[in-house]
Amino acid sequence: MNEIKIIIAGPRGRMGSEAVQLVTATAHFKLAAVLDHKNDGMMLSDVAGFQSISNVPIYTDIEKCLQEVEADVLIDLTTPEVGMYHAKTALEYNVRPVVGTTGFTKENLAELEDICREKELGCIIAPNFAIGAVLMMKFSQLAAKYFHDIEIIEMHHDQKLDAPSGTAVKTAEMISAVRETKKQGHANEKETLKGARGAEYDGMHIHSVRLPGLIAHQQVLFGSDGQTLTIRHDSYNRASFMSGVKVAVETVMKHNNFVYGLENILD
Amino acid sequence: MNEIKIIIAGPRGRMGSEAVQLVTATAHFKLAAVLDHKNDGMMLSDVAGFQSISNVPIYTDIEKCLQEVEADVLIDLTTPEVGMYHAKTALEYNVRPVVGTTGFTKENLAELEDICREKELGCIIAPNFAIGAVLMMKFSQLAAKYFHDIEIIEMHHDQKLDAPSGTAVKTAEMISAVRETKKQGHANEKETLKGARGAEYDGMHIHSVRLPGLIAHQQVLFGSDGQTLTIRHDSYNRASFMSGVKVAVETVMKHNNFVYGLENILD
Amino acid sequence: MNEIKIIIAGPRGRMGSEAVQLVTATAHFKLAAVLDHKNDGMMLSDVAGFQSISNVPIYTDIEKCLQEVEADVLIDLTTPEVGMYHAKTALEYNVRPVVGTTGFTKENLAELEDICREKELGCIIAPNFAIGAVLMMKFSQLAAKYFHDIEIIEMHHDQKLDAPSGTAVKTAEMISAVRETKKQGHANEKETLKGARGAEYDGMHIHSVRLPGLIAHQQVLFGSDGQTLTIRHDSYNRASFMSGVKVAVETVMKHNNFVYGLENILD
Amino acid sequence: MNEIKIIIAGPRGRMGSEAVQLVTATAHFKLAAVLDHKNDGMMLSDVAGFQSISNVPIYTDIEKCLQEVEADVLIDLTTPEVGMYHAKTALEYNVRPVVGTTGFTKENLAELEDICREKELGCIIAPNFAIGAVLMMKFSQLAAKYFHDIEIIEMHHDQKLDAPSGTAVKTAEMISAVRETKKQGHANEKETLKGARGAEYDGMHIHSVRLPGLIAHQQVLFGSDGQTLTIRHDSYNRASFMSGVKVAVETVMKHNNFVYGLENILD
Repeated sequence: MNEIKIIIAGPRGRMGSEAVQLVTATAHFKLAAVLDHKNDGMMLSDVAGFQSISNVPIYTDIEKCLQEVEADVLIDLTTPEVGMYHAKTALEYNVRPVVGTTGFTKENLAELEDICREKELGCIIAPNFAIGAVLMMKFSQLAAKYFHDIEIIEMHHDQKLDAPSGTAVKTAEMISAVRETKKQGHANEKETLKGARGAEYDGMHIHSVRLPGLIAHQQVLFGSDGQTLTIRHDSYNRASFMSGVKVAVETVMKHNNFVYGLENILD
Repeated sequence: MNEIKIIIAGPRGRMGSEAVQLVTATAHFKLAAVLDHKNDGMMLSDVAGFQSISNVPIYTDIEKCLQEVEADVLIDLTTPEVGMYHAKTALEYNVRPVVGTTGFTKENLAELEDICREKELGCIIAPNFAIGAVLMMKFSQLAAKYFHDIEIIEMHHDQKLDAPSGTAVKTAEMISAVRETKKQGHANEKETLKGARGAEYDGMHIHSVRLPGLIAHQQVLFGSDGQTLTIRHDSYNRASFMSGVKVAVETVMKHNNFVYGLENILD
Repeated sequence: MNEIKIIIAGPRGRMGSEAVQLVTATAHFKLAAVLDHKNDGMMLSDVAGFQSISNVPIYTDIEKCLQEVEADVLIDLTTPEVGMYHAKTALEYNVRPVVGTTGFTKENLAELEDICREKELGCIIAPNFAIGAVLMMKFSQLAAKYFHDIEIIEMHHDQKLDAPSGTAVKTAEMISAVRETKKQGHANEKETLKGARGAEYDGMHIHSVRLPGLIAHQQVLFGSDGQTLTIRHDSYNRASFMSGVKVAVETVMKHNNFVYGLENILD
Repeated sequence: MNEIKIIIAGPRGRMGSEAVQLVTATAHFKLAAVLDHKNDGMMLSDVAGFQSISNVPIYTDIEKCLQEVEADVLIDLTTPEVGMYHAKTALEYNVRPVVGTTGFTKENLAELEDICREKELGCIIAPNFAIGAVLMMKFSQLAAKYFHDIEIIEMHHDQKLDAPSGTAVKTAEMISAVRETKKQGHANEKETLKGARGAEYDGMHIHSVRLPGLIAHQQVLFGSDGQTLTIRHDSYNRASFMSGVKVAVETVMKHNNFVYGLENILD
């Protein structure tokens, strides 16, 4: 495989530091530079936690970085605002963006899609880089065509504030897009304790378990006469995101179009 | 082992017919007679479905049955009203009752306990004969001493009317009897879809899944720092009750006291 | 939907009797006749277990049946030898075969494919009609592209003779067709009890659990850094096959080609 | 509760550093001193990683430590050799040992038991402090009395060398101590791929799954007619051991005898 030269924006963040590890540990990847909002002009090896990584300059100005450093791909793991600016600037310099963010607006996405079409460049925006979670959602959507009764159980540590989780709602949305609405359970079903049947989304039921010890887990259950099908994802730590970043970097070099969502490059 | 002579009340019911199978298939059990509300004076082999079972007379009158037939144990799988009358009459004739019913009142239980004490006879009343389910509840109660955060997921076919299931509520009650009330989850937890966190019972959360294909399943989840413990029972058919009936019959012959609940004879 | 007229071969078998139920219970299906090796000339309602099904003649000779009865689809749930003869004869009479059998040879399949091409008729041969199991295998094949470490745990009742199950081997074969061979586990892994790591198939490990109470269950586990993905199928009874037969009948009417394996019509 | 004064031996080890956290975070525990093979005479706050912990002196000589520091309990998380010496010395000074080690010989255990009897002091030696794992083993032993068919599936990360895991073997041993040997599965069972049925221990089957992403998980499956019971423990990180250490410290103060194995203090 040809070497892919990569710039990482946000190298000191939780995701960013994992990405630095990924890129430096992958034989055909080369870390060309990093973008950070401080430490301009220093080398990455001067920063605590990165001492062993040599020859990687730090830039605070993306334009200067792109003028001075030869690169193929920009991995951006910052914020939606910065990410949008970074992605547009990278495309101007013919560098392909791989951006992990949940916060882009429809207008943002449309604007990037236009630039990609015009410049015939690849760009991947992904709210979730955990391949296992993305496959779970994709398979759930496929299975919903044949199994019309579906319940989702998501399980997280008890410090999580929101229920259900974003992934559970996204899964239900994706299923809902292909399944006819169906009121599930017995027509005369009755809750003797309120809430027992969980939340309802387009007829599906979603249950949120919260316990100390748990990390991030979800199962999607499908039932029909005499059988059940279960698709389960367990995420134990942030390393789980990196295989998705790797696939995205490799894919963005092969395709000259705009893609939103990792599920659209997994086939 | 000594042969145990058994009368079964309700032989044509769903549980009763399984019990007939159990008794006739167990080497040290002997089916002495059956009690049915019809077919008085016939033989069980005259009834459809029981042709192969020889020498078992049918009675409609329990007094007549107990006068004519020598028996050690009465297995009653009828209704609470009939079961109470049967149990009392059996004890009068020094026959030990094993009764499967959920409907006895506190007064019923107290009355039977008194008779057992007076006559020094064993008697077992069990709302649930599935040993696996009873062990699940018993273990859950034990585990609750060390794991204070607990959620219950029960899963049944979608023709079930009530949620949560009786077993889930019984499990929560048993845990609640030994655990200090605890409000679980994050203090600022928020349901963005109503019901997501399930039903609450004394701080525990209970989730009821209903899908075609499922039969009767329950898991009890315990979480603490860095670990989870899960106890799960899957019931696939009524045969699951028979091992409990067998243990009850063997136990009722050994002990001369009244017992309510299979959990109190499993040690 | 247009009514589909159906002939069922093997109506008294375990699968066949489920198929009779399916066809008579489906609004747009009509049971036109059955093929049986006995009871020629009788009506299906004359046979024990089918009293309620009216107006369905029984034939022992398929040619006579196809000459006298107007039909769109033949569902064959007999044996490979009979199934092959039935399928060929049905195609001659422009009736589309849906055949459930594991025993066809490559020559059989090639011959049927030729006839279908020539006559421009649909025909579906499926060794497994359980949609959930087929989706599990299909999803496993898709996931193997991104998760290269895979183990299969199949669990069956303890009266099963062979280990691993046919479905487990089929799953491993399908994965193997798309995954590079990989020796899994630690290079210096050591079994202190022989067999602990299970069977090996092209580097994957397969584990066969046998316990009374279990029916037919399989999970395929995929692991990578920080995450696992699990796809599980539970089959509780033969009703699980019927949704697959239904999909096959509907599909065989729409497509004018030969298909082997339910996985090729689920998309 | 009365304050319990604690000395920790091995504070810089993986388990030891968790124990320092536990003791300093528990209201009724007080860290009186630590034993380390270096840094004698320094304060713990001088050591990297412990800066925030004040007033805890470091000793390399246990005798000197016990002479100068008032303590109730010694938590030892070192090696079997050092642990044995530490435990004996602590008892001489009327300090109760809580030792986490798998390596004590029968002679070691007998010697400590004698000292405890003579001095009427509590002492707890535990090879495994994960309460969830210990409860799983204890419940498995209880369930084996009613379910005679048992299989164990243990699942770990793919860098583990030995299969099966120590916990799986310990579980099988504990079950074996109360269960009659039973050859499980069909009498004519046949492995078409060698190893499929896993390892055998006294008739039970043990299966070892190894995948990247997994941490440390075990399930014990029990089957009988129409039902299965499953007990599962998931350990995600070393914090899981600390609740067991806490229970052991509290218990060792209450009882004046020798105990081997956490299972004997959980009731």
